[in-house]
Formats: sequence, structure tokens, C-alpha cells
Amino acid sequence: MYLAMSLDGFIARPDGDIEWLHRPEYSVNNLQGLSYDEFISTVDALVMGRHTFEKVLSFGVWPYEGTTVVVLSNSGIAIPEHLEGKARVLSGKPEDIVAQLGEEGKAHLYIDGGATVQHFLKAGKINEMTITCIPILLGDGISLFGSIGAEVPLRLIESTSSENGFVQVRYQVG
Amino acid sequence: MYLAMSLDGFIARPDGDIEWLHRPEYSVNNLQGLSYDEFISTVDALVMGRHTFEKVLSFGVWPYEGTTVVVLSNSGIAIPEHLEGKARVLSGKPEDIVAQLGEEGKAHLYIDGGATVQHFLKAGKINEMTITCIPILLGDGISLFGSIGAEVPLRLIESTSSENGFVQVRYQVG
Repeated sequence: MYLAMSLDGFIARPDGDIEWLHRPEYSVNNLQGLSYDEFISTVDALVMGRHTFEKVLSFGVWPYEGTTVVVLSNSGIAIPEHLEGKARVLSGKPEDIVAQLGEEGKAHLYIDGGATVQHFLKAGKINEMTITCIPILLGDGISLFGSIGAEVPLRLIESTSSENGFVQVRYQVG
Repeated sequence: MYLAMSLDGFIARPDGDIEWLHRPEYSVNNLQGLSYDEFISTVDALVMGRHTFEKVLSFGVWPYEGTTVVVLSNSGIAIPEHLEGKARVLSGKPEDIVAQLGEEGKAHLYIDGGATVQHFLKAGKINEMTITCIPILLGDGISLFGSIGAEVPLRLIESTSSENGFVQVRYQVG
């Protein structure tokens, strides 16, 4: 899991907007810690919920070229033609998703999006989290962790800060 | 403001319990960053809400010897006899509290507790925040920031991590 959140724990505004992440004052020459490119190069498949998928589609460009994307949906969702072979739909419990992808040799999964992260955390199916804390209180939005109702101990792997005020923390779960 | 929170943003369990902060695995020889003693020595008055005050009273020992404590309550609250001269009750808007204490020469206020922090943040009356992030997801509890409904830009002053996995971040507000 590799995500950015505001200090008050939001990954997006209430409508899913993440433009606040790209403010001019956040531009930086030397971002410290684990870079997104470095992280994504180790990922076998990216697992996201329907809401995140629809948000990404709205960008117009597909940002996950080269990475298999799995969209979780119990009700079914149409994958646009230009993404055939790149994105597919699965449904089921986190355990089943992990098992099924594991059988295909996809061991390192990138779990993305608030609701999906919460489901997988509760199921004990997240091993590592890299979170970049953005120096802002958004005040409202889509919460990364919400109130998952389960206690999860973490082990800090690394913490780094960048000159733009981003603080990246990496934890091993459990 | 000097507080500890879980990675999912809680400062206490739903009933106010903070025992989870004192786990044996969190004991550490060299805590990095701004220590509580260092911080509290610069504080002119500690401002807290009624809930936090009642929680502290339940500890049996008064942990704020040497620091003026101001309890915010609109309905009035009885200060126990043994705390006369050490704690007092004030009511009013954050602006008024800050102004009144300022007239008494109390410039550096330590704003404590979830609801009180949120009120003062919304009123623009918090200048600096020191938050120690504990390596745990509590899953539920009293949220430090909640959804304050206002956007607040922050400037990172410092970020330090300790060998027990605590990550302390210090921000200037606004």
C-alpha cells in the first residue's frame, strides 16, 4: 500500500478530488524515501475499488501502463475497451482475491483506495504500508483508515522527510 | 499543542482510555524530538476541555504541578479543593480565552484534547502542533482532528523518529 494522506487522515476530498496533492508549493527537487516509481516497479498487481477506478477513468489518461489492475466489484462493472488486457474485475473477500492472484503468480499486491485498504486491513491482508503525510489539514474527505474497528499493531521501518514538508512513514503490519 | 495519536488519528479509545500509549514495547531509552518536559517548561497555561479534565482527575494524581490549568466549560464545573489555585474554569470562544489569558501575561497556551483542539484550530488560534505518531491502528476512538470542515495549511518544522517506532512531527500552522 502506497498512499498520500493529509495530516488529518484524508486521501481525497469528499468528492474524490486529489488536486490538493499537486499544489505548486509541494513541488520538490529531491523527494526522500521510497519513490512511487521504485514502489510500482515491484508490484505484481494493483487492487482498487470501483470508486477509485471510476475516479482514475475520469483523468482521461491511464496512469498504470505496465501494471495489471484488478477492480473489485460485486455488482460487476464494464471495463472500457481500451483497457482490455490491462484491467479486469474480480469479486470476493480479500482472502479469496489474494489467493486467486497468488495462484497466478501475483504475490506483491498494491492495495489502493480507502474502502479497499480498510477491508484488506481488517482481513489481515496488508503486510506493508507506505504513507506520505502531506502538510495540510483537509478538514473533510475520504478517510484512509476510518474506524476499522480492529486494533492493528505496526512496526516502523523508516521515516523520512522532504524539503517540501512531506513526511513519509513506512510500516510493517502486525 | 503536544499530543500523541495512533496512525489512524485517535488520541484515546472511545472511553478516553490512553493505557495503549504505555505498552512495554514502547519503552525507549532515547526518545528523539521535543520532549514533553522541554515543551511543558515553555507553557504559560494548559487549556483543556471538561472531558479531558475529568479523565485526568480519574488518574488520582495531578500530573500538571507547576502549570496553570484552564478548564473550558460553559455549564460550569466544580474544581476539587486540592486543585484550588492550580486549575480554574473559563468559558467563551477560543478568541476570548486567548485574549483573556494574554492579558494575564499567559501567551504560550498548550491546547489539549480532541474537541478543544478542533475548536481552537477552526478559530485559527493554534500556532504550532507537535504530534507523536504511535505505531498502531487503534481502529476506533476519540479523533484528534475529526472533520473540522476547514482547510488548514501547515509548515513542517521537524520530523524525528525514535527506535520504538514513534514518529514525532512538528508543524507551524498557517
